[in-house]
Amino acid sequence: MIDLRSDTVSKPTEAMRRAIYEADVGDNCFGDDRDTLRLEEYCADYFGKPEALFMASGTLSNQVAVRALTQPGDEVVIHRAYHINFFEAAATSAFSGVNFNLLDSEDGLYSVADLDCVYNSKARRNSNYALPKLVVVENTVGSRGGTVFPLTTIADIANWAHTRGAKVYLDGARILHASAATGIDVKQYTRHVDAIAVCMSKGLGAPIGSVLLGDAEFIAHARKYRKWFGGDLHQSGMAASGALYAMKHHVERLTEDHENVKLLYESLQDIPKIRCIYRGTNMLIVRVDELGVTADVLAEDLRSNDVLCLAWDEKTLRFMSCLDVDRQSMQRAAAIVRSILARRVDASEFCTP
Amino acid sequence: MIDLRSDTVSKPTEAMRRAIYEADVGDNCFGDDRDTLRLEEYCADYFGKPEALFMASGTLSNQVAVRALTQPGDEVVIHRAYHINFFEAAATSAFSGVNFNLLDSEDGLYSVADLDCVYNSKARRNSNYALPKLVVVENTVGSRGGTVFPLTTIADIANWAHTRGAKVYLDGARILHASAATGIDVKQYTRHVDAIAVCMSKGLGAPIGSVLLGDAEFIAHARKYRKWFGGDLHQSGMAASGALYAMKHHVERLTEDHENVKLLYESLQDIPKIRCIYRGTNMLIVRVDELGVTADVLAEDLRSNDVLCLAWDEKTLRFMSCLDVDRQSMQRAAAIVRSILARRVDASEFCTP
Amino acid sequence: MIDLRSDTVSKPTEAMRRAIYEADVGDNCFGDDRDTLRLEEYCADYFGKPEALFMASGTLSNQVAVRALTQPGDEVVIHRAYHINFFEAAATSAFSGVNFNLLDSEDGLYSVADLDCVYNSKARRNSNYALPKLVVVENTVGSRGGTVFPLTTIADIANWAHTRGAKVYLDGARILHASAATGIDVKQYTRHVDAIAVCMSKGLGAPIGSVLLGDAEFIAHARKYRKWFGGDLHQSGMAASGALYAMKHHVERLTEDHENVKLLYESLQDIPKIRCIYRGTNMLIVRVDELGVTADVLAEDLRSNDVLCLAWDEKTLRFMSCLDVDRQSMQRAAAIVRSILARRVDASEFCTP
Amino acid sequence: MIDLRSDTVSKPTEAMRRAIYEADVGDNCFGDDRDTLRLEEYCADYFGKPEALFMASGTLSNQVAVRALTQPGDEVVIHRAYHINFFEAAATSAFSGVNFNLLDSEDGLYSVADLDCVYNSKARRNSNYALPKLVVVENTVGSRGGTVFPLTTIADIANWAHTRGAKVYLDGARILHASAATGIDVKQYTRHVDAIAVCMSKGLGAPIGSVLLGDAEFIAHARKYRKWFGGDLHQSGMAASGALYAMKHHVERLTEDHENVKLLYESLQDIPKIRCIYRGTNMLIVRVDELGVTADVLAEDLRSNDVLCLAWDEKTLRFMSCLDVDRQSMQRAAAIVRSILARRVDASEFCTP
Repeated sequence: MIDLRSDTVSKPTEAMRRAIYEADVGDNCFGDDRDTLRLEEYCADYFGKPEALFMASGTLSNQVAVRALTQPGDEVVIHRAYHINFFEAAATSAFSGVNFNLLDSEDGLYSVADLDCVYNSKARRNSNYALPKLVVVENTVGSRGGTVFPLTTIADIANWAHTRGAKVYLDGARILHASAATGIDVKQYTRHVDAIAVCMSKGLGAPIGSVLLGDAEFIAHARKYRKWFGGDLHQSGMAASGALYAMKHHVERLTEDHENVKLLYESLQDIPKIRCIYRGTNMLIVRVDELGVTADVLAEDLRSNDVLCLAWDEKTLRFMSCLDVDRQSMQRAAAIVRSILARRVDASEFCTP
Repeated sequence: MIDLRSDTVSKPTEAMRRAIYEADVGDNCFGDDRDTLRLEEYCADYFGKPEALFMASGTLSNQVAVRALTQPGDEVVIHRAYHINFFEAAATSAFSGVNFNLLDSEDGLYSVADLDCVYNSKARRNSNYALPKLVVVENTVGSRGGTVFPLTTIADIANWAHTRGAKVYLDGARILHASAATGIDVKQYTRHVDAIAVCMSKGLGAPIGSVLLGDAEFIAHARKYRKWFGGDLHQSGMAASGALYAMKHHVERLTEDHENVKLLYESLQDIPKIRCIYRGTNMLIVRVDELGVTADVLAEDLRSNDVLCLAWDEKTLRFMSCLDVDRQSMQRAAAIVRSILARRVDASEFCTP
Repeated sequence: MIDLRSDTVSKPTEAMRRAIYEADVGDNCFGDDRDTLRLEEYCADYFGKPEALFMASGTLSNQVAVRALTQPGDEVVIHRAYHINFFEAAATSAFSGVNFNLLDSEDGLYSVADLDCVYNSKARRNSNYALPKLVVVENTVGSRGGTVFPLTTIADIANWAHTRGAKVYLDGARILHASAATGIDVKQYTRHVDAIAVCMSKGLGAPIGSVLLGDAEFIAHARKYRKWFGGDLHQSGMAASGALYAMKHHVERLTEDHENVKLLYESLQDIPKIRCIYRGTNMLIVRVDELGVTADVLAEDLRSNDVLCLAWDEKTLRFMSCLDVDRQSMQRAAAIVRSILARRVDASEFCTP
Repeated sequence: MIDLRSDTVSKPTEAMRRAIYEADVGDNCFGDDRDTLRLEEYCADYFGKPEALFMASGTLSNQVAVRALTQPGDEVVIHRAYHINFFEAAATSAFSGVNFNLLDSEDGLYSVADLDCVYNSKARRNSNYALPKLVVVENTVGSRGGTVFPLTTIADIANWAHTRGAKVYLDGARILHASAATGIDVKQYTRHVDAIAVCMSKGLGAPIGSVLLGDAEFIAHARKYRKWFGGDLHQSGMAASGALYAMKHHVERLTEDHENVKLLYESLQDIPKIRCIYRGTNMLIVRVDELGVTADVLAEDLRSNDVLCLAWDEKTLRFMSCLDVDRQSMQRAAAIVRSILARRVDASEFCTP
């Protein structure tokens, strides 16, 4: 079975398991967990922020960041497609009591002009009403095929936000993919924003974890809210050691995932009636609106042929690569996907009048 | 001074003051306030809903309705322009913990196709994520020039919502204006929705108050939340009596306001460089983007000439009529507005190359 | 019918109705309501605070004050018996997200030693945990018979709170009764606290309203939250004029209510098996645990004999006086209450072994 | 260094590390993590509840349980000393919007009579006010020396709660210690309550984790809220495998911890001026009010002599045993503690008049 559902499905490698086995732990609630501290120090340095904090999940990083950067009633300016709205809208509104001013676009990007537009779509901005206190950027954009957010646009957005007294949060779950795809040093992305989260268990392949970064004041707040959210773990080094291993050994190889997905993408180029969207990172979106069959049926078809993918919605399949999928496996998967889709296209020729 | 800032500025008439002076009151927290009960009974009957509840303000009705119809984390599908988002986003998110899935359009209307679109823009709809539990309609649309929401679209929207387990709330602060403009019996609007609020202190001219309507279960919830929000008033009949008088004597005359605003609209028809939007009810929107002067300056100009209007945003003026403005006053106001704007147009001719 | 259920049941007097009839109003949402401004100015001066804000109810004042003085997760140190916990616990926790550290005592008073005790009953006080940001005093204590809170204790409490970075809120719904009972200038009470609310529709007899007081920064926050809670009313002067009349004409007479209740209290002195608690203000608590009959039955008995009182709980009756009850009426009521209770005592002699 | 600060400080044993190294994992967000499923199945069976859910921490279990069993505004009846109030008051109020009705007692126990008392200390119980929807029991009571809650009292409390429409949550972080101390089958405790959490990283010695248990409906809700709180982890089996190992190998040995602490307790019996509280489980509380020195100083003294303990508050030391502390270490620790305290007692003889 070749699992292309998500980059979160990777299992720890033998070497990573060994790192975890040998983890140098203590009770992190007392500040005694050495491998957690090591990971935090490593990441602060790597991403160019004063402090870092280990989190059990990307969702936890997001929830804690929003809680730490806003007060109830504040407005959060965010693209519809971003994880914090797309998957976490319930949690964010219930726990932080903020309201979303939603941006939209197909690829998940937006500009300062878009910000002006949604800013002006609300009541005259005075303190009686919701004021935007947080602007969110996601890079790459997970629910829109992994689009890379252009660095200059991020700089402009940050400037717009700071001018209006708002903070900027970068949901950088896959910021290393953006960096890998563009060759831009990750610190170039992080330096514009007030806070950033990076996921350890997506492309990096750690079993558990995310790292939240920012200045000392932000991290002090985040530390409090991590406790509130139930994320202050005792021997967290058992998880952090895996993440630290991933940071040290799995960043370089992210381009392999990109190339693997590109291979899949190219193998489907000449199949008619489907629409493939490849944005240069580790995801492939395939729209199957014209095939006369739902994505669920296609995903089931593929599963029967040893390829797992995600039926993202009724008419969309999503394929991702990760470190459990080598070149050869992807070649095999590409042949299977191509064959299954081609067969469906043929079938649809006869079906549709 | 002719005050066209809003339909909320009207002062109680002599007859209404007398009704208030003679109010038949008791402690409404003990259920003893007879004029409050009379108003509630009258409105339940008038608007065709099982029960009614007196509220001190339209915002209170909205806040209580959202709180009663949702739980924290629920999604509320709402147009950007509606009062609950436009003015009340902070309160709604802080107190009810819901998240907005925002619709958009220039006139404030939307269709079932728009609902499908925003519905599908979020994560696969399962119980782990926010589910839409409330769909909001506003009629007329206050922040977009008083657009009348078509009855058949409301019926379709209600059907869409109910099919998906969501309730429908009609912010009918100015539903009587919709009814006056279309000639459609107000019960035709209310019968499709689960709850509705009608404002007593906008076009109707009562000093204070709004009425929230729905079935017995909803009103029982609303009664609880009214108390939570600090809206359970002792001798509320001193306010309700004014509202009851308004319901009995000021509904018929709403068309006068519509005609007054139409008069103003028509008097500005041939002025170049401005854009007037009149949607057939009691508001006139005037866009002054091309005049080379902000709305604030124009509003100040008009004030110096005895006409008050609202500088809605930097480039927009809003004029409304209400029962304090008779035909003659509006004719006078129209002449003044026309003259001031015309002068500015002339000035701008010279300014712009 | 003589209504002794509460001091909130009083109806506006003829003169007060006339003041309301003649109210000098405008749209308070635009800051145009002159009688509301007059009331606020009068109260700021009277109670010795920089600014005042008109509120539609005492609950609204409390909710807005807590919201303005805390953030979610903050600890509020409060006596169990106070309105904010006793009646408003649901609203306060749902809307402000604060937690109560509860004090207890029969009369509703507490000391600095009690504060130390509850302060130390929680986790070591650091910023990861709830910190007390608000200490509440109620004067008089409404749910414990109207106890007057000693001025020196308030001063000590305020000092304790301020030393620990907490604000002090005085729920002074009946602070004028405390002042009337002790002869202490009301400004002596208010000067120790950061914010205070005074009810206009309790002993003062206005139909609707409360006034919230504090410094300019606090009132600016309160103004915002008043809007959030739906308490920003249009022609609020129709209510404020009644409150202003009450402030000017009904403060002096509060001692009459105290004397009336004292008369009732003294008339019941020699009835055995009941326990009367009179704390020198406008309430009388009668415990009927030993009568072998519930308070509900007794209240019903009294109602049949033209006296209304409150069955506070299963074993407690509460009697209050207000400006609708003159000396003669209270004498008549006292005779009735005495007679009804005495008859029940006789009956209980035979019942109990 | 002998670490007696908490039972959370234990490091994974060699065998447990091996179990983690070999963990059979998958993406638990897809339901694919086999060791997590195994742990949940094992615990459901062991604790006698229909379903179980792995949580990253005890705080997460508590937060999710409260959120799943209440709505904002609900009353939670809880002892002051319990973790949910003592440490988690901020989180619980901010995230669940509930209010606490606080019980009190030195040992952390309470009875049905106490419940009646606090129940009656609030406003007449109708739906306009907060209603108790959750009653919390903690067993053993962590912040009061590890008191075992008597089984029959739990049964009575559950009956009281269920009669009033409230659920019962057992914070059983150390329920296995209660069971070990009394010999009562743990299922006898769990059968009375609606939901229970058991900590894997306290006495059991797993590095990370807690298990939440209840019926299918409760667990479905808890699963949703676990996601909201950021607790839905990818390869959670890396943590669950440690917990499963602990459940299988470290339950039996909990009595060793109890005996170790008893040894320490007995060794301090004849030291004057201190007060030792030993409740039969794995904690020892030592009150040092009369020693003329703060607990912080004593803890520092002990640290210099290779024994770590917790300065719980200014006048209290807490000592706990866990699987990292064998009999011999505890004997050594006991001698050191005895010696340090005795020296301080001698010193205080001279100091105090």
